[in-house]
Amino acid sequence: MATPDLVFYTAKICPYAQRVELAFQEAGANVTRYQIDLQNKPEWYASRVNPASKVPAIAYGNTGSDPENPSSESAKIAESLVLLEFVAELYPDSGLLPKDLVERARVRFFIDAVSNKLFAPFRTFFLRGEEPENFIAALADVQELLSPSGFAVGTGPQVYKEIFESERFERLQKYFAKITSRPSFKNSFDPVRAASSRVVDGICSE
Amino acid sequence: MATPDLVFYTAKICPYAQRVELAFQEAGANVTRYQIDLQNKPEWYASRVNPASKVPAIAYGNTGSDPENPSSESAKIAESLVLLEFVAELYPDSGLLPKDLVERARVRFFIDAVSNKLFAPFRTFFLRGEEPENFIAALADVQELLSPSGFAVGTGPQVYKEIFESERFERLQKYFAKITSRPSFKNSFDPVRAASSRVVDGICSE
Repeated sequence: MATPDLVFYTAKICPYAQRVELAFQEAGANVTRYQIDLQNKPEWYASRVNPASKVPAIAYGNTGSDPENPSSESAKIAESLVLLEFVAELYPDSGLLPKDLVERARVRFFIDAVSNKLFAPFRTFFLRGEEPENFIAALADVQELLSPSGFAVGTGPQVYKEIFESERFERLQKYFAKITSRPSFKNSFDPVRAASSRVVDGICSE
Repeated sequence: MATPDLVFYTAKICPYAQRVELAFQEAGANVTRYQIDLQNKPEWYASRVNPASKVPAIAYGNTGSDPENPSSESAKIAESLVLLEFVAELYPDSGLLPKDLVERARVRFFIDAVSNKLFAPFRTFFLRGEEPENFIAALADVQELLSPSGFAVGTGPQVYKEIFESERFERLQKYFAKITSRPSFKNSFDPVRAASSRVVDGICSE
């Protein structure tokens, strides 16, 4: 698809940036990528791109030739969920969002459930090492929201395969297998990240 | 505008339901409203409409004639932000979302900021009676996101007028005055609610 006038500020270590990367790849968008070192952020980043100094973010339209100094005429947009909607709108034929408005509402409800009901117990279990009961229960709730087959966009990278090996999570396993088999996932997944999850929490933006 | 085949399950006491009510009124949508008593919820509500048993929610399409028993063929959708997007898509000419995709991203970023940065300190101050410093600081951040004039949809009812009387919040005051002057706000605001905010927290859905 078309190459937009768009600079994508990202970091391989950030799962929120990854879901935007997935959207770009699924849309076939050939954007300009700029890797931000989250542990040593360039001084220009907050003032010129994202005041919150987090990734993911984009500069869009009239960006100019230097990603480190995007034109003030370009629009700066941050927050991964806002960017997912933006990419879906920039590429309406990409299939990132269904055409039907009820189906789109279901996708957004699913993303909302993952964001607001799954992430917190996920962090408690994975990052703080507490008991997994709440996380398992939240996974069961999220699985209930999936249709018998197919995707729900925007959430794949947050759910790690190793957790659900039981028959109870068969549908969720299929969902995850389907997502991880996509070229976009293979191209954007950094295996180092899984091992360094503790670093991620708090330094990149939802 | 058109009367959709849509039942809106709502409660006058719930600010999250109110923002969906505002969207319906701004769109000129003549929906069927059903008031849910949040302190004494009807037994059919969770099983037939919203498993989370909260408002706002809708039944859409082939709803049938009885709001207390909407057809199983109708789509059930919950979560106020999901519903705001849905109403904007159902009425694309309503002006609820700007036509330009960069402007739409700005609206969603604003809503995200209010949801994720303002609500928590708001609750801490108003509902728990703690010091207002964090809330004031969050208000200042949110005001920074507003363009010099005009709206950003979906957030009005959450910000209460009485807080900002200083020159520092002049722009936010204008924003609030403009929202509260709309017929949709006057028609949907329940003054009893402000006095009973403590009741609201936790019984209606974001």
